[in-house]
Parts: sequence; structure tokens; C-alpha cells
Amino acid sequence: MTPEPLGFPAVWLRHNCPCPDCRDPVTGQRLLKITDIQNGLVATVTARHDTEIVVTFAPDGHRSVFRRDWLAAQAAEDPDPRTEDGKVLWRAADLPAPHTADWAAYTSDDRVREGCLDAVAGYGCALLRGVPASPGRVLDVAATFGYVRETNYGKLFDVRVEPDPDNLAFTSREIAPHTDNPYRDPVPTLQLLHCLRDASSGGDTGLVDGFAAAAALRATDPESFGVLTGTPVSFRYVDKETELTARQPLISLSPRGRIAGIQYNDRSMLPPADERFFAAAREWARLLARPEFLLRLRLSPGDCLIFDNTRVLHARTAFAPMGERHLQGCYADLDGLLSTLAVLRRCQ
Amino acid sequence: MTPEPLGFPAVWLRHNCPCPDCRDPVTGQRLLKITDIQNGLVATVTARHDTEIVVTFAPDGHRSVFRRDWLAAQAAEDPDPRTEDGKVLWRAADLPAPHTADWAAYTSDDRVREGCLDAVAGYGCALLRGVPASPGRVLDVAATFGYVRETNYGKLFDVRVEPDPDNLAFTSREIAPHTDNPYRDPVPTLQLLHCLRDASSGGDTGLVDGFAAAAALRATDPESFGVLTGTPVSFRYVDKETELTARQPLISLSPRGRIAGIQYNDRSMLPPADERFFAAAREWARLLARPEFLLRLRLSPGDCLIFDNTRVLHARTAFAPMGERHLQGCYADLDGLLSTLAVLRRCQ
Repeated sequence: MTPEPLGFPAVWLRHNCPCPDCRDPVTGQRLLKITDIQNGLVATVTARHDTEIVVTFAPDGHRSVFRRDWLAAQAAEDPDPRTEDGKVLWRAADLPAPHTADWAAYTSDDRVREGCLDAVAGYGCALLRGVPASPGRVLDVAATFGYVRETNYGKLFDVRVEPDPDNLAFTSREIAPHTDNPYRDPVPTLQLLHCLRDASSGGDTGLVDGFAAAAALRATDPESFGVLTGTPVSFRYVDKETELTARQPLISLSPRGRIAGIQYNDRSMLPPADERFFAAAREWARLLARPEFLLRLRLSPGDCLIFDNTRVLHARTAFAPMGERHLQGCYADLDGLLSTLAVLRRCQ
Repeated sequence: MTPEPLGFPAVWLRHNCPCPDCRDPVTGQRLLKITDIQNGLVATVTARHDTEIVVTFAPDGHRSVFRRDWLAAQAAEDPDPRTEDGKVLWRAADLPAPHTADWAAYTSDDRVREGCLDAVAGYGCALLRGVPASPGRVLDVAATFGYVRETNYGKLFDVRVEPDPDNLAFTSREIAPHTDNPYRDPVPTLQLLHCLRDASSGGDTGLVDGFAAAAALRATDPESFGVLTGTPVSFRYVDKETELTARQPLISLSPRGRIAGIQYNDRSMLPPADERFFAAAREWARLLARPEFLLRLRLSPGDCLIFDNTRVLHARTAFAPMGERHLQGCYADLDGLLSTLAVLRRCQ
């Protein structure tokens, strides 16, 4: 180990030099290649000013000026915001309803919008009320924070009873907690569901924090947790014009072993012929079905739910097949939402 | 272990029962819940016909009829097509040029289109020639197999010298092998680059099979391979309206430990303050820069390159800044391409 002035390795300080030779002054992108940095580099603090620290490197003699506040920020704890470490895990008792905002306030007040996007980032869901209950408006909601992910289902899809359904979503059956499109790679990371008409009875929506459920499985049944995180599972969807297959573990971990993604849909899952996997998957399904995890809500016309499809499972109760229940949904991605949120936070 | 008739666990056979009580006859989706399957289930083959096998389960007495050809297909080896096991790895000597097809033939002959998409799936790249060199046509190319992934750069982006660039791509500088948008989550899995005008000199394109390079690193320097696959790295892009951050290891592995994804862009990478990481990342950068891995080609007006942005790194040589070089690019996703390919294969 070479000495670490300021608590950072010399090679890291050199790589982060902000001078115009090392970083393009216009684009801000790094010009210094990692291969340009010599082995055995030594860094010495050669001046300390109020807001800046000067570091000189040997043997190349390069001189870098670092802002103190920037160095302090680099040393701070920094949990991965996409894993359980960056989330608020919840059960039904903790979260009686998703964070809710009115569409008019959301579109006119950046702080309201920030609150909603922050809820999706932290809790995995948010609910907008009063979005005009007319076709296509779900795309307007997506456009307030990001970009629609078009798929073989179109830019948007209708969820209602269809005479010749190619998906259980288009029947009036109960649907157990699941994530959408695990047969897609990459999976859409966000889903929006906008209620145009509700059922006269039934058709209630349920949400489950899959990260909280996975953490519970890890605590109570670490063996099943190990099987589910270590087994890639095929998911498949086929119709006349489409044939999608992807493999994902039911619970994905980050390289650091933290819970980072949930994929679960019993309808499209093709489990391996492995009894250990079945035992683990049944434990997982039983846990996901526990009422303590299920946040129940009823979408009324004009309600638009936004949720993290890599974390929050959604479900619905059965409803009368002759009803008029009609939702429109679309997919989008978290990166756009998190970017919009970060820019809104700048303006505080 | 319960007995395994036909080589499959009873629980797996029961879960795969194709009868109309277990699988929706219209949608083909599974109705049987994994939690409905009893523990200690026993399966017995109760009849063998020419094309079908009948299995009866105890204690529930359920009877399932399986097609013999379906059972045989389930028993076959099935490497994960998104990992190194499903790819043809190559170095420059193995692949003097990407699989190439003429746009007119590609759009009129399904077999030509299938050949191109198969090359993207297997080799990570294909080249179309004769795509009309007019703005926006790159979106038409994407529409032949899938869906554009719109981002903060728009549906498409222009790659040419700009007076006030916010990205090195929009200068005339050399750009080393990299993948695009590692600061995005999910990363776009496909990239298209369509040449409208070429440079008078320079601006050549290079492609590197990142899976082949990663396999070489694993063989020659397993310690560095271990560091790079086990370390999440932040990537970041910031401009006035955008702030994207994502963490990914430079080399991603499947849950089975197979090479499954490459993310590498020195310009936007914020490595951890860890000397071991720097040593490994420098080995990796040196290996990626070796001429033996670099497929060089020159895009002429009308050429459109399609490549897997989670596997194939792209590069370009510097060119005269006063030149007229102009590419248009867009992002798309592999799932759409692989679905189109699977449907084309059905029709053979």
C-alpha cells in the first residue's frame, strides 16, 4: 500500500484530478486514461487553503487542486440507492396508503412532484389523484418524469375484460402479487396504472414491498433465500407475433450481496426441475401472500399508480366479469425518474 | 427426495401440468399456484402412448398428460443465451468484418433479416449497407426488429462535432473502446449507429467483443477478474437537465457465475477509492486496448451498425475537426430483437 494522504489512495486522487489536462473543460468528461497512471504513484499534500487542498504526485510531478467540500462528500457513506440499503422497507401496517398527490398540484408545483418521485424512489410507489380519466393520459403522466418503454403491447396497454384474452390480466380473475414482464430483458423498471373506470365490486388493487418480503425470507429461512438468489429461472411469454424469454433469479442481489431486484410471476415462470428450488419458491409464494405485507387500495377513476416494477409486486382481487373496469397502463424506467428527481432537488 | 419418474421431480411435473384446470386454455398462462402443490407429492407413470405419457399424482389423484416431444425438449441442455455460454466469442482474427447485409434484401427477405438478427444475438454485431443516408432512418432500422429506447438524448442522437459539446462523442477526439450509458439503469442493451456522412480521413470505427476480453482476463488474471466482477462502480452523467447515476460492476456475472454483461466507460466512471480496484481496472483497460481484440471498420454513408451494448465495446479514431462526419444513433433493447428472431425462426 502506498501512503494515503487525506484518506484516499494516490491512484484514486490522480484519477480524479479536475485540471483541464485530465478532464475536458467543456464536457466535464475524463481525458486521463486509467492506463496513463503510473504504478507506485506517491501523493503529497503540498498546500492547504480555506476551500482547497493541493496535492503533488511523484514521480510525474503532476499537481492537482481539490475542493475540500468535494473531498468530504467522497468520504461520506454512500449506500447503493437501488438496493435495500437505499430504500425504506415497509409492511401494510407501516404504509396504510401510498404517498398521494393531486394531479393539478403535481403539475404546477415542483415540490409536490418532487415528493411523489421521492416516494417512488424510497417506498417504491406513489398515487396521483385527479388525472383526467380519458384514454392516453397515462402517457402524459410518464412524460412528467421520464420516457415510456414501448413494448410488443404498445406504448400503452388496456387492462379490461377481453373476449379473447392472451393474458390473465385481460380476464376478471383474481391475480396474485406479481411483477410484470419478467420474461423481458431488461425488465421495465417502472409501471403506471391509470384507472378510467372501476368495477362495481371487486377489482381492488394490492401492493407488496418485495424488498421487505425478501428481507423477511432472509431472516427466517436463509436457505430458501440462498436458493432463490442463486438460481436463474426462465420466464416466457408467447403469442402469434411475440416470443420472449429471459432468465432471472426471483430475488436478485447486488455484487455486494444486497437485495436489488424482485422478479415474480407464477403465470410465466418455468422453474428448473429441482425440488430444492420448488421448496424455496413455495416458501416465497406463501410469504408474499401474507396479509401483513399487502397494502390494499381501490383505484377510482382518475387515479394513477406509479410503482417500481423491480421491487413492488402488484395484485388484484377478482371482479364481476360483466363490469366496466378499465385501466390503462404503460411502462417506463427508473433512470429517467431518478434523474428528474435529482434535478428537482438541485432547485430547492 | 421423492421418486423421479421420467427423470423429473414430481413437483415439477405437477407444476407443468397442461390440463385446462392448471393452465388457462385461452391465455396459456398457469392457473395452478405453486402453493397449491402438496408436500411429499408422488408421481407415477400410469400410461405410455405413442406421443404422450400419462402421469398420476398421489395423494391428490390429479392426472396429467404430457407430450413426449415436450418432455424431451425440457431435458435438453439449455445454456443461458444472454451469457458467454450462448455466444460465439471472437477476436479480430476470427471476425474480419461484422455479418453484413444489404438494406433492400434485409427488408424484403425474412431469411436475410434473420441472418442479421442472429449475428447480433451470437456475435454481438451486424452491419447493414445501403440504408438511405437521410436523417431519421436509423429509427426505421430499429423498427424492423424492436422498439427504440428514448432517453434524455431524444429518440435519436446526432454524433458530429458540436461547438459546445457536453459529451466527448461530439468532438473530433479519439474515443477508446467503451460501452454507452453505463450511468443508466437499465442500460440500453442495443445501439444503432447510422452513417450519414464520413470524415475525409480518420473517424474509423472499432469493435471489441467484451465477453472474449473478459474471458481472457479470467484466464490470465483471475484475481483482477474477481475484483472487477465483485465491485460495483458508480457511473455518472450530469448536464443542466439531467443527472444520471448508476452502479454496475465492470464485468457482470449471471447467478451461475458466467460472464453476462460489460459496462466500461472511463469518461463517466467514478471508481471506488481502492487500490486493488485500480490495479484490476488498469489490467482490464490494457487488455481492451490490445489490437488482437479490435475489429476495425470504416462506416460509409448508408452503413448502419447494430450492436449489443452490454457486450461489444465501440471505439473511434480521431478525425479532422473541420470534417463533415455525421452519424445518427439510437438505443433499443435486445428482448425485442430476440423475440423477432424467434418468430422468424418459427417460419423456416
